[in-house]
Amino acid sequence: MSQSDPPTNSINSNVNWAPWRQRMHEVIFEADTPAGKFFDVVLLLMILLSVLVVMLESVADIQARFENAFWIIEWVITGLFTIEYALRLICARRAGRYALSFYGLVDFLSILPAYVSLFITGAHSLLVIRILRLMRVFRVLKLVGFVGEAQALRSALLSSARKIVVFLAFILTIVVIMGAVMYLIEGGEKNTGFTSIPRSMYWAVVTMTTVGYGDVTPTTNFGRTVAAALMIMGYAIIAVPTGIVSAEIARTGMGGKAMTTQVCPDCSREGHEADARHCKYCGASL
Amino acid sequence: MSQSDPPTNSINSNVNWAPWRQRMHEVIFEADTPAGKFFDVVLLLMILLSVLVVMLESVADIQARFENAFWIIEWVITGLFTIEYALRLICARRAGRYALSFYGLVDFLSILPAYVSLFITGAHSLLVIRILRLMRVFRVLKLVGFVGEAQALRSALLSSARKIVVFLAFILTIVVIMGAVMYLIEGGEKNTGFTSIPRSMYWAVVTMTTVGYGDVTPTTNFGRTVAAALMIMGYAIIAVPTGIVSAEIARTGMGGKAMTTQVCPDCSREGHEADARHCKYCGASL
Amino acid sequence: MSQSDPPTNSINSNVNWAPWRQRMHEVIFEADTPAGKFFDVVLLLMILLSVLVVMLESVADIQARFENAFWIIEWVITGLFTIEYALRLICARRAGRYALSFYGLVDFLSILPAYVSLFITGAHSLLVIRILRLMRVFRVLKLVGFVGEAQALRSALLSSARKIVVFLAFILTIVVIMGAVMYLIEGGEKNTGFTSIPRSMYWAVVTMTTVGYGDVTPTTNFGRTVAAALMIMGYAIIAVPTGIVSAEIARTGMGGKAMTTQVCPDCSREGHEADARHCKYCGASL
Amino acid sequence: MSQSDPPTNSINSNVNWAPWRQRMHEVIFEADTPAGKFFDVVLLLMILLSVLVVMLESVADIQARFENAFWIIEWVITGLFTIEYALRLICARRAGRYALSFYGLVDFLSILPAYVSLFITGAHSLLVIRILRLMRVFRVLKLVGFVGEAQALRSALLSSARKIVVFLAFILTIVVIMGAVMYLIEGGEKNTGFTSIPRSMYWAVVTMTTVGYGDVTPTTNFGRTVAAALMIMGYAIIAVPTGIVSAEIARTGMGGKAMTTQVCPDCSREGHEADARHCKYCGASL
Repeated sequence: MSQSDPPTNSINSNVNWAPWRQRMHEVIFEADTPAGKFFDVVLLLMILLSVLVVMLESVADIQARFENAFWIIEWVITGLFTIEYALRLICARRAGRYALSFYGLVDFLSILPAYVSLFITGAHSLLVIRILRLMRVFRVLKLVGFVGEAQALRSALLSSARKIVVFLAFILTIVVIMGAVMYLIEGGEKNTGFTSIPRSMYWAVVTMTTVGYGDVTPTTNFGRTVAAALMIMGYAIIAVPTGIVSAEIARTGMGGKAMTTQVCPDCSREGHEADARHCKYCGASL
Repeated sequence: MSQSDPPTNSINSNVNWAPWRQRMHEVIFEADTPAGKFFDVVLLLMILLSVLVVMLESVADIQARFENAFWIIEWVITGLFTIEYALRLICARRAGRYALSFYGLVDFLSILPAYVSLFITGAHSLLVIRILRLMRVFRVLKLVGFVGEAQALRSALLSSARKIVVFLAFILTIVVIMGAVMYLIEGGEKNTGFTSIPRSMYWAVVTMTTVGYGDVTPTTNFGRTVAAALMIMGYAIIAVPTGIVSAEIARTGMGGKAMTTQVCPDCSREGHEADARHCKYCGASL
Repeated sequence: MSQSDPPTNSINSNVNWAPWRQRMHEVIFEADTPAGKFFDVVLLLMILLSVLVVMLESVADIQARFENAFWIIEWVITGLFTIEYALRLICARRAGRYALSFYGLVDFLSILPAYVSLFITGAHSLLVIRILRLMRVFRVLKLVGFVGEAQALRSALLSSARKIVVFLAFILTIVVIMGAVMYLIEGGEKNTGFTSIPRSMYWAVVTMTTVGYGDVTPTTNFGRTVAAALMIMGYAIIAVPTGIVSAEIARTGMGGKAMTTQVCPDCSREGHEADARHCKYCGASL
Repeated sequence: MSQSDPPTNSINSNVNWAPWRQRMHEVIFEADTPAGKFFDVVLLLMILLSVLVVMLESVADIQARFENAFWIIEWVITGLFTIEYALRLICARRAGRYALSFYGLVDFLSILPAYVSLFITGAHSLLVIRILRLMRVFRVLKLVGFVGEAQALRSALLSSARKIVVFLAFILTIVVIMGAVMYLIEGGEKNTGFTSIPRSMYWAVVTMTTVGYGDVTPTTNFGRTVAAALMIMGYAIIAVPTGIVSAEIARTGMGGKAMTTQVCPDCSREGHEADARHCKYCGASL
């Protein structure tokens, strides 16, 4: 998560920083003052309302009845979000850096589809991307400590990322080969979905992941035998990513007390295990 | 589990507590006396019979043949449960506290649907909620130690609750966005289930959880590619909650009667198994 | 696995034990002599052939072509198995104990369906139960050490049995309640499978286990929402048994070096952890 | 992975090894020189292009439009691969050993289907086997260290191979017995897929692995009850391979660069993380 907010202790050094911009920055980007908190809660409600409206608009008979109300809500919220985006650009210490940060892009993409939908029909369904804005609100409100949990999850996923990539490459190789094999076996049959290798690969993914829609199923005896082998393989293989992530979570202490949050008094590095009595980097007593 | 029973050592101080109420309390709330045990076993059988009757009533041809018998059984049991509920209110030290406790509410909800069904047809199917009463019976009978296991499971789930909430929020975000994307991709096609964003979200849940009914399936090539990506993602993501709970269970030592919290009196080290009689590090008696 | 074989060191004390019975016992029950090994390999092949024949008989057009050959093979093998069963009864030290042991029952059930099929059509499909006889053969042949692995797996499962029972009780409670709820929601609709509570419970099992046949699916919006909630719940819940078994396997050292196979020199008990320096039962140095 | 390349330090002893063969060996088999790297990158692109063409050829309308282009690309790449295979045979120190190594066989199978397809229609779909050649390229390019991860995964799988074999044998036994049971229960019904034991076994695999196509589903009440039991069993059983692999991965330290096998020189205790520079128990330098 890129840091678009300036560090608080550098404010004093920033002499040409107008007080009203400081004020606005506090309200919009932070949640330490009552005004900032109020702003964030209102934002949160508007995001949820906006996503809800986009969803309901796609249901034909609800849309027919509330078309005008939806139209008004959507454009009012889009207007407010546009103003908010402009204010963020103005009061951010470095507007460019904010605009290119993760949150800046999400803020921009949250208003874009509304304007695009004036030219391209249907594009406004993409307004659901606004739901990503919730991430910012959670972060700012420091909502009941869930942020820490989310970051721990994220770091566990990231540190097993490489293994998961290898694993996915392995899965894709199997999918390609099984897709071609099943196309050869079942391709000639009538009324079966194996009409091309890409479609057979779609079947292989549906089968290996144990989703199993049943829209494409083997009909020959040989095809069924191969399919059964693939299923059992997929069933055994699902153990691998689970094992990787389990071990990773257990290691990083997300599962509990394994890790201490204690920082070494000498070298100030963290990441010590709970049973460590000396810093593992410099040897100082903890 | 809220404690509605008064602690035994406070009975003496409760001077105006009639002996017959004490007696009844023992029989109804506890299972230490033969009468109490008999009461609980009868209760257990009645609960099971009652749930069975509600199930069978819903099967048209069984209901046609045994309508009268079912009607009688149901109302007899409901009558008995109503009397029992009244008695519990009477003999509980603090009736109000019992009524609002978890078990008190379950007891109340177990008789409510029968009376409601006099006014609203069908409501009596909700009598299956009586199955929750089994929890009390298990607890009272201290049935073969399963209560301990259940509580261990419960505490493992609770202590990973926060991570699971973060995880579910993550899943829901993906579901909302994928639902909107698939609605855009597949929405225009005929004979496909992606008629609205909420329905596409239903599809996304069915797919990500690898349930895969097949009542809504993508029909375009692009839609199938996106669906395949979602499946593989869901397949990889399933590893996360499993890893969380695994690590949690491993940590709390649920993986067996396993660990004791006892500390070696000589070397003060812990981590001994429950069946250890000597410290595994220094050999001192535990 | 009950032990039907007499311990070898008690043979001398058994004076009235005819040599031919000892000989036969060695051949039939053990695999240490060449004759015993040959007997077991022949048995293994006959079991596999027999199961294969039963399978192929059920395929209409294969049965039409090879009806006579199948009939002969089946009765020859059944005859041989019957003779073998008689011999086992004769040469077992305690015929009754063998007959009631697990393997004795499997041996008996392996020939029963053939004779029953003379009176009840179709019963002979149950001959596939013969596949359970393979367990004995594996055990006797001590096939490539897999027996140890199987027993380790079995003990890991057994020691988590209680937790799994609690878990299944939890699942069944959810299935009963969700079944009743979905019956109320979807029961009135036409062309939907929720025609009774038991059938709704079938749907709930299909959904929670993420099997998802799609033969019964919700059609109302409310039903779909409830179904989606159940799916996500099932997806989260699948983590629990996995976590239990993972932790159990990790604990019992099936995953590797956690446990040592070392036996205490004093009390001869095993099951010590790899890092133990003293016997945890008697305190003797390991 | 069999080693077809001669060890570098034995080159000097190989006096009759022509310089041009050494040169070619460097380019084709290794990736340390710019020429070798270029060769591998070109190879990688050709493999991907080739697999893509085979896939697209199977889609009827794309094939109709680009038939000629596809035909040319396929034969050009096949020609180049044939030449490359010949060169590999020539410049390999021991041609026979290369030809029989894993990579040698993959290289051979990558060109075979093209020639076979001249005689047997459809065989050329097997050209997708070329995707296995990517493994070599990854290995040679030492692509971003993923090879290490892949080998770690492979060794974790191999060391749990025995347990997984036992597990699969267990699954297959259940599948055979459940297949026969469901054939008996559902076989007589019309419009149901349980027409033979092998087909019932196919259903059992589809159900136990939680794939659940829904092309074969039970229709009787008893069949549904048995099916529900099988599902819950499969749901519980999926925990076993996951647990095995999790424990294995945790043990081998794949859950991170994590653990070093280094022992503290002072207190001789192990279990240090790979990034530890001081013993976490006594503080001595590692």
